[in-house]
Amino acid sequence: MKKKLRVGVIGLGLGRHHLAGYVGNDEVDVVGIADVNGELLRTMAQEYHVPNTYTSYTDLLKSQPDLVSIALPNYLHAPATIDALKAGVHVLCEKPMAMNAAEAQRMVNAAHGNKRVLMIALNNRFRTEAQVLKKLIEEDVLGEIYYAKTGWMRRRGIPGAGTWFTQKARSGGGPLIDLGVHMIDLTRWLIGNPKPKSVLGATYAKFSDTEQGVIDVEDLAMAFIKLEGGISLIAETSWASHVPSEGAYVKLIGTKGGAEIIGDKLTIYTEMHGQQVDITPAYTPRAWADCIAAEIAHLVTCIRDKKTPMSTGEQGMEMMKILEGIYKSADQGKTIKIG
Amino acid sequence: MKKKLRVGVIGLGLGRHHLAGYVGNDEVDVVGIADVNGELLRTMAQEYHVPNTYTSYTDLLKSQPDLVSIALPNYLHAPATIDALKAGVHVLCEKPMAMNAAEAQRMVNAAHGNKRVLMIALNNRFRTEAQVLKKLIEEDVLGEIYYAKTGWMRRRGIPGAGTWFTQKARSGGGPLIDLGVHMIDLTRWLIGNPKPKSVLGATYAKFSDTEQGVIDVEDLAMAFIKLEGGISLIAETSWASHVPSEGAYVKLIGTKGGAEIIGDKLTIYTEMHGQQVDITPAYTPRAWADCIAAEIAHLVTCIRDKKTPMSTGEQGMEMMKILEGIYKSADQGKTIKIG
Repeated sequence: MKKKLRVGVIGLGLGRHHLAGYVGNDEVDVVGIADVNGELLRTMAQEYHVPNTYTSYTDLLKSQPDLVSIALPNYLHAPATIDALKAGVHVLCEKPMAMNAAEAQRMVNAAHGNKRVLMIALNNRFRTEAQVLKKLIEEDVLGEIYYAKTGWMRRRGIPGAGTWFTQKARSGGGPLIDLGVHMIDLTRWLIGNPKPKSVLGATYAKFSDTEQGVIDVEDLAMAFIKLEGGISLIAETSWASHVPSEGAYVKLIGTKGGAEIIGDKLTIYTEMHGQQVDITPAYTPRAWADCIAAEIAHLVTCIRDKKTPMSTGEQGMEMMKILEGIYKSADQGKTIKIG
Repeated sequence: MKKKLRVGVIGLGLGRHHLAGYVGNDEVDVVGIADVNGELLRTMAQEYHVPNTYTSYTDLLKSQPDLVSIALPNYLHAPATIDALKAGVHVLCEKPMAMNAAEAQRMVNAAHGNKRVLMIALNNRFRTEAQVLKKLIEEDVLGEIYYAKTGWMRRRGIPGAGTWFTQKARSGGGPLIDLGVHMIDLTRWLIGNPKPKSVLGATYAKFSDTEQGVIDVEDLAMAFIKLEGGISLIAETSWASHVPSEGAYVKLIGTKGGAEIIGDKLTIYTEMHGQQVDITPAYTPRAWADCIAAEIAHLVTCIRDKKTPMSTGEQGMEMMKILEGIYKSADQGKTIKIG
């Protein structure tokens, strides 16, 4: 019998869902969890029968797990990931990978230098509708994709004001780095991860006064992202804006067909024997927690089989360049070249 | 009894709808129509009881009408308009105003120099839902508008290939100058005609091979237009692309509320006593022909009362700067500053 991977989870806010994913996976043993919140730590340890708990992640790393999930506030992603990689531990780091591209670069370097796997958790890639569309795109159903739009617009959903989410120094930004990262990544992944060439963006903060606590990040961001091959991508995201109810979408237009994912519905627009047709693939959408479980299963398999996971640190770094570029573009009011 | 305005219509393709609008207006007499197509000329003269027909618009101008509609192919808008204004005739010129901003400037100069009225026909402003929204915006229902999106996306609708529509030298461009002009104008008008600051655009031609005749214009265009006051406007338009069925829309986001016009449906997104509400104004949408009739009635009243019409040559010139800027931006791959 193959030896099980010894895993730990650092940060139990979002990390509790990683924990559930690991506990449900036959190929791993959860050996420890870490969080600064002692009560949360005890509750989770009890619920998932975790043998060891730590209020400091460095203590968890000393127990020499094979793999850790890092689900700390954004400003801790880079230091914790680099500490783990240096300790010889594989890392599944939550999105956004880091606060900026320079941090992301150091994380990638640490993974290479220590010959460890660094995967960025982008659970939207594991949604059924995304995987169905990815397969159809790989079969050339859309032809050459040249225009894409994506967005995640919340009518009102600023994460707890006064927490790290709304403080630029700890989050790196607002909805762009929180939600936009998911949708821009999903769109680029579907198209085949074309390299970013330039961005022109704008950010707005119109709802800061209406919430409690410190909010020094944007509440709406939008951008025109030029990708290699002449592809135009428009992205928009908000935590609060006067729009219809919350919705996330990806819309792709190619020479042979178009596709829209709206919520968990996928539709293909194309032609069949000269007839314009709308095609609705049949599938059962994966629940959110199951996407994280699938993501974890993918990584565990990759580590076992010594394969590169489908969401790499290098891709995460390109994403950070895009996000950083959009913030810079919004600040300076001009196009920012990337790469 | 007030003397009726003597009007003529030049170009009976789209112009036949102007003709119908004038014939239904009590304050004008249609004294002549002009078109190079003799058969169309006779048919229209018969149907609308027009006393004089001309195969040359200069002959119509010699009959000294008070006002003419100019609905010729785009490349003739500037010369015909300038000829009419110089002949002392007021002009209602179809959109797009001209082939480029330089032509538009000469048209505006001719109007000023000859003290005649130049109105650009942008019938979408006369749609009921647009006028209802305009009124609500003027009452500050949306607050400060900071982000707008607009588009007119046809799944398959390239105007007769081989006609002037698809030849850059006679049309000035494809769907951007044909359809985009309507929606960008409507959006700017709703917001209060903020001045354009810069544009970043892209154009694509992917369907040219599948159609007959000369097509040397784009079939899809999109742009990020920055307007004064930090307003971001995303515009998209296509004659052919793999998208859901044809749809035109304007979406506005303001500090107090948002609004969407999709087709002829208007919805307002705002709050009422702390409750998020979607508001559906009740109205009867105006038919397309009635929008043109309303547009004509507006101009006739303005000429009678010596008032400036709501769609001026100056606004049309700003629009031409935007369109020209988008084409230039798409060609050069960079942001083009305007004004």
